[in-house]
This record gives sequence, structure tokens and C-alpha cells, in this order.
Amino acid sequence: MTQPYKGVRDFYPEDQRVQTHIFSAMRRAVESFGYEEMNASILEPTELYLSKTSEEIVNEQTYTFTDRGDRSVTLRPEMTPTVARMVAQKKRELGFPLRWYSIQNLFRYERPQRGRLREHWQLNADIFGASGMDAEVEIIAVAYDVVRELGAHNGDFLIKIGSKNTVTKTLIERRVPVERHREIFSLIDRKGKIPEPERMKRLAELGGDIEITESADIQEMRRVLAELGIENTVFDPDIVRGFDYYTGMVFEIFDSDPKNPRALLGGGRYDNLVGQYLPAPNAARQAGGGGKIPAVGFGMGDVTTRDFLETHSLLPAIESQTHLYIAPIPEDGIDVNVQFQEKMENLMQTADKLRKQGMNVAVGMNHKKIADHIKAASKLGIPYFAAYGADEISSEKLKIKNLVTGEEKTVPLDAVPDFFAPRR
Amino acid sequence: MTQPYKGVRDFYPEDQRVQTHIFSAMRRAVESFGYEEMNASILEPTELYLSKTSEEIVNEQTYTFTDRGDRSVTLRPEMTPTVARMVAQKKRELGFPLRWYSIQNLFRYERPQRGRLREHWQLNADIFGASGMDAEVEIIAVAYDVVRELGAHNGDFLIKIGSKNTVTKTLIERRVPVERHREIFSLIDRKGKIPEPERMKRLAELGGDIEITESADIQEMRRVLAELGIENTVFDPDIVRGFDYYTGMVFEIFDSDPKNPRALLGGGRYDNLVGQYLPAPNAARQAGGGGKIPAVGFGMGDVTTRDFLETHSLLPAIESQTHLYIAPIPEDGIDVNVQFQEKMENLMQTADKLRKQGMNVAVGMNHKKIADHIKAASKLGIPYFAAYGADEISSEKLKIKNLVTGEEKTVPLDAVPDFFAPRR
Repeated sequence: MTQPYKGVRDFYPEDQRVQTHIFSAMRRAVESFGYEEMNASILEPTELYLSKTSEEIVNEQTYTFTDRGDRSVTLRPEMTPTVARMVAQKKRELGFPLRWYSIQNLFRYERPQRGRLREHWQLNADIFGASGMDAEVEIIAVAYDVVRELGAHNGDFLIKIGSKNTVTKTLIERRVPVERHREIFSLIDRKGKIPEPERMKRLAELGGDIEITESADIQEMRRVLAELGIENTVFDPDIVRGFDYYTGMVFEIFDSDPKNPRALLGGGRYDNLVGQYLPAPNAARQAGGGGKIPAVGFGMGDVTTRDFLETHSLLPAIESQTHLYIAPIPEDGIDVNVQFQEKMENLMQTADKLRKQGMNVAVGMNHKKIADHIKAASKLGIPYFAAYGADEISSEKLKIKNLVTGEEKTVPLDAVPDFFAPRR
Repeated sequence: MTQPYKGVRDFYPEDQRVQTHIFSAMRRAVESFGYEEMNASILEPTELYLSKTSEEIVNEQTYTFTDRGDRSVTLRPEMTPTVARMVAQKKRELGFPLRWYSIQNLFRYERPQRGRLREHWQLNADIFGASGMDAEVEIIAVAYDVVRELGAHNGDFLIKIGSKNTVTKTLIERRVPVERHREIFSLIDRKGKIPEPERMKRLAELGGDIEITESADIQEMRRVLAELGIENTVFDPDIVRGFDYYTGMVFEIFDSDPKNPRALLGGGRYDNLVGQYLPAPNAARQAGGGGKIPAVGFGMGDVTTRDFLETHSLLPAIESQTHLYIAPIPEDGIDVNVQFQEKMENLMQTADKLRKQGMNVAVGMNHKKIADHIKAASKLGIPYFAAYGADEISSEKLKIKNLVTGEEKTVPLDAVPDFFAPRR
């Protein structure tokens, strides 16, 4: 009984370091644009999703169960409904444009397959209350900056921009009945996922076999982005995104490497979702608010991000954040369980002084041989080692060994933090 | 439909800032002792808990449901079994003493009451593979440092140390049958929670009305802690902790303020838990391992921590991490939806330059009046504001307004990062 639940991951420290590396880059980029972190519970009332999607989808793709108070609870499958609910709840107290981000875990109730996990982590960044193209340019710039902050070059990825409203407008011009639009969008979205002749045949039957050309506003958006140094954009009429709630511009960032032909993030404008959580129009008007809050945002998952970084060799080797392992030199005949060793007491005080100067210091315990301490430090990925005994106490010096190169250097105790300074 | 699920919390940015403040202090303290962050899914196979606790407790106190593959899944009610499982899984690859920490959310399936939430966040810090008192001294020192890092003084809290093994030893000496020990520990643990005469009567019936005096090892431990500057400790025989898996020293940190007579963290030694997840003894011996990995650790919840900090006025006002809100000066007759304003384009480039110099800059959008931009910046808690128009473009200067004091200062664009430097 040591395996995790099927389809989820354990994060040992070496895995968690990668998560922290990715999440820190995400934070730096989005915070520089003024996005503020928020969060919520993974537990949501099922009706949060039911009112937006069919009951069938909620039951098939989410973890949904009934609690002892007979409430139907769902583990969030995506963050956007939660964020929209929270904006709607405090609409009058919030300042707009409101910029929010979160890094949270999401759950999909499906049979685990290669590359498909039941739980993954995702960055969400959204801007509310900005209806113009400036907000769309910004959200693409934020997504671009996150990918650059992770070390990617412009050539490593391509920003594909689509326009759901242009498709809708064209369908209406061609008098394609509105009730067919949803299936048409779904077929456009599934390009490459189902056989092309079948997809085209069905599209033609529905009247969805339309040519979409780049609109003036997408052209203008791409020009402004290029002025901001973001030149790796392309108009792609097949980008419509899977979620029904998108209303306008949609985009995805694709890996340029044919070895990993996947999107690592996607988003777009969704101007009607928050309004669906607001009280009925009349009540809203009385409360001083309109029934609509424009929104544009994106989501970026940890699994696709990691795949992208690995494809481009952008994941650095991340070592332990512990600087030094200090081991008490073992002595015969002393049992630490019976009497506390004076040496250990002294070592703990020394370690404490180093910590107060900003160092991360692990104290060796339990092993009866110095060689076993060194082996432990290596397994832990701690780069430096020092033994501590009577000589070290009287000389007030540490012999610091680099466990990778084997180099040793004797350093006075009060100079140890400086020895490590460039590493901090 | 804007409320969260009953018994869980929404974290708006002002709430999330408090969480980040608390979690950052926790991280700094535990990392300085060489603890490495790890994580796991909130979903665990129910049997992880069943093999340790009665089925009744798992069903009554946890969120447990059956997935479509007929697996019983539980939302983790505590982190220790997960951590023990993961240590057992990779025992041979890990270096000991192994120091791990995590900051994660836990779920309790109970009727929500005042101060009792269905989801809370918790720091866990554990050291594995160290059987001596040195590990116990360290874990108490780590807990102490976390509380100090949050700004508390020694007088604000008291470290109560108990000894579960001393109680067990005394019960055995008094020939109290082993099958009664669990109920006796439970009664000791519930001091103050059930009527005292009833509790004492039941203890006497079971033979658990024993006097426990401080043992030599706890005395020695408290002496060493005092040498490390940790003098606010006391021996308390009534500290035994609720979980069955504790085997030896147990401790709690109590708020000293009578207004908040509660523990903010607790932990202890649990030497048998990891072994229960290891393969059967023979297999383990063949694999080169023993069947036991000593462990000592503690857990510290966000709700009790926040209560403690509020009781002692230790929660600072935490402002937005966004430095500056820059708003384009509105112009008549220009519709941002039709044509991208040259001014906005210029503003976005200017904001970008400031970001590249380490600043967090939010760009104003949508409002038709400068006053509305200023109101928005205030609601967002952003401390500084600047308007951006033709004058700013030609003079290359920003008039920066402090939204708290109302002070204004005109600063050349390239000196803006320096103006904010002390704030970063």
C-alpha cells in the first residue's frame, strides 16, 4: 500500500522543485502586469457547473458526489466558473479592471491514459471589466511573458489567434441556424483529432464548411503585439477553444517543435459568464450593477508546460535549497538516546547561528559512520558537507567538502555564510 | 449562485495575501533547517487510512466516495499517512535523516460549526530516520522558529511537552490491560472538552487515574532547548495528542493569551507508522531494509495560526504587490474597440519597460474618466497612480500620486524604478 491513487502524482522533493521552478516563473510574469493571487476550495456546489454545461458532461467528466447534507459536490474541473462566481459575488466592492491569477489543482474524472491525468495544476490569469482590444493584447502579452520567463525563445513557440465571433458572424450571414453553431464549433475544435474526411463531410452537412479570413481587428491586434516585440503570432481560423463560454478572440500557444505538436496554454474572451452568476437583471440594476462583466483570460497546465520545457531542454537541474549538511563525528560508547551529547548541543547552536545569517543547514543524525553521513547528504542532493567534532569546536573552523567535485576548503566559522553567499 | 460550498473559504486577494504571508514565514523557517518541500494529491485510496484507523472513523470523518472503477477514494483528512506512504515507497533511494515539509489542504467531513471548517491548510514538517532525542529537540526548535518567524515573542506562546511512552510505561507497571490504553489516552486528550468529574470517574474505572511526573529525558530535552534559547517550555502530562500513531514524545504550542486558549500546532514521535506501509518483514529484510523507520514531526493549521496572530496583533497590513496603476487619459470620440489608440500602445510599451526593471505595473482600461481610474486603483489597493497622455509622452515624465497621502511627485520615466526601489 505505497502507491498513490490511480491517475494522480506524488511529488517527491526533486519533482516539487520543478513545480516550484515553473510556478515561480508564472508568478513573476503575471505579477509584473499587476495580477493578484486569489484562491478557492477545490470543492464546489455541482450547480456551479450544471447551470453552464449539460448535466451529462458534469457527470461524465467530473468527480461529483453527494455529501451527508444531501448536497451535490464537485471537485473543480476548471477554475473559470469559480473565478466568475467570486467576481459576481463581490462585484460592487472590487476595482476594475480586475486582474486575478491563481495556481491551483483541477480534477477530471476519466479513465487514466498516457499523458492524461486525473489531477493537474494550472495557472489561470484573467482580466475583468475591460471590453476593449487593449485587454486582449495584454492577456496575450502576459501569456507570452510567462513562456519567455520560463526561458523560451520566440522561435520555440507560436501564438495562434482565432476569432469565435468572426465564425459566428459568418455562420449568421450564411443563415446557418443558431442551434447548429455549437456542433460546428465542436467540429472545428476537433481538427486533427477525428478523421479529416469525416469531419469535413459533417461540417458541410451542417453548413459549417466556411472560409474565414483574418478580420481587421485581429490584424490590428497582431500589429500592436509586434510593436511590443511579440512577433510570433499567426491568425488561425481553426482555433475556437473547447469551452462554450468563449465569445470573441481566442488563442493558444503552440510548441513549434514537431516532436511536441501541442498547445501549452489557451484562453480567450468570455463576456457573458460572470453575468450568469449575477442576480436577475432587475435586481442587478437596483443594486447598481449591469448584468454583464467582460472578461478575458487564459489557463496553462503544469503537465503541458513541463513537456514543452523538456522538449526544448529548458528545465535546469535544480539542486536542493539546503546549503550544507553538518554531521557530528561519531564517538564510541555514547548513546544519544540516553544522554544528549555536548558535541551535538554545540553543533545545534552552530547550525542555528548559520541559519540566522540566511543559510539552510541540515544536521546529520543517527549514522554511526561519517561515510554514511556523506552518502546520506549525496542522496539528499545537498551540495556541501562538513564533519563536526572536538577539533572543529576548538579551532572554530569547518572543513567544507564539495560533494560533486570532492574539493575541500577550511573556512573559519564566521566566514561560512560568505563562502555560500554567491549561492544564496 | 455565488456562494462557495458550505464550510470552505473563498480567498480574495486580500485573504490570499494573509495566506502567503503565513506560508512564506513557514517556508523560511523550515527550509533553514534543511526541510525540503514535497507534495501529493488530495485524492488517496481509502485503504491508506483503513489499515490505520477504524472503518467507522474513516466513514464518519472523511470525504470518501467510490469512483467509476469501483475504487474507494478519500480526500486526505491529514497528511501524515501520505508522507509515510511515500517514504515507504522509496525508502532505499532516500537519504536519511530525511527532512520533508508540505503546505497543503486537508478535508474533514463534518457538519460545519463555528471555527470548524471542512477544508483547511496546514504546514507539515517531519524528520525520518532519526531515533534520538536530537531529532525531537530539532522538531521543537523548528516549530518554535516558525512561530517566531511569524513575529511572536517567547511570552506569546508556551511549548507543552508530554510523553506518551511514560504514560504507557506507567500503565503497564500498574498492570492496566493493554486493550484499555487507547480509551485512557482518549480520555486524557479530552481534558477540558468533557465534564471533569465524568472524565475522572471513567479514568478511575479504567485504572487510568495515574500521576505522571517529568521523566529524565524530557528534563534533558528541555535543558537543551533552553540552551538554544527556547525557554518557554513546560512538561504537561495531559498532552498525549489525538492520533493513535504517536509513540513517544508529543508536544503542542499553546497561545499564552487566555482570550485564545488553544493549541496552534502539535506533533510528536511516531516510530511505527512508516513501517506499516513497508512490505512484510521478510521481503523488507531481503530488500535490504528493516521494518521500521523512526519519525517525528508536527502539523500547523492556517486557521489556528491566523487566530493566534490576530490575538497578538501580529498580522501586518499587507498591501497589493502591484506598485503602480497607470491610466491612459481618456479622449473624446475615440472608441478603443474600433481603433487601437496610439497612446495606449505607447503606454503599454512604457509599462513594459518598467516591468523589465522589476516593477509590477497595472494599466488602466475601460473607464471614461480619470476619477474612475483613481477610484479603481484605490479599490484594488494599489498605492500609487499616474495618468498617461500626450504631455507624459512628450515630457517623458510621470506625475506619481500616492493614493494614501495624496502627495504627488513628478519623476522622469527612467527614474521611476528608483522611486519605487525601497518598496521592492
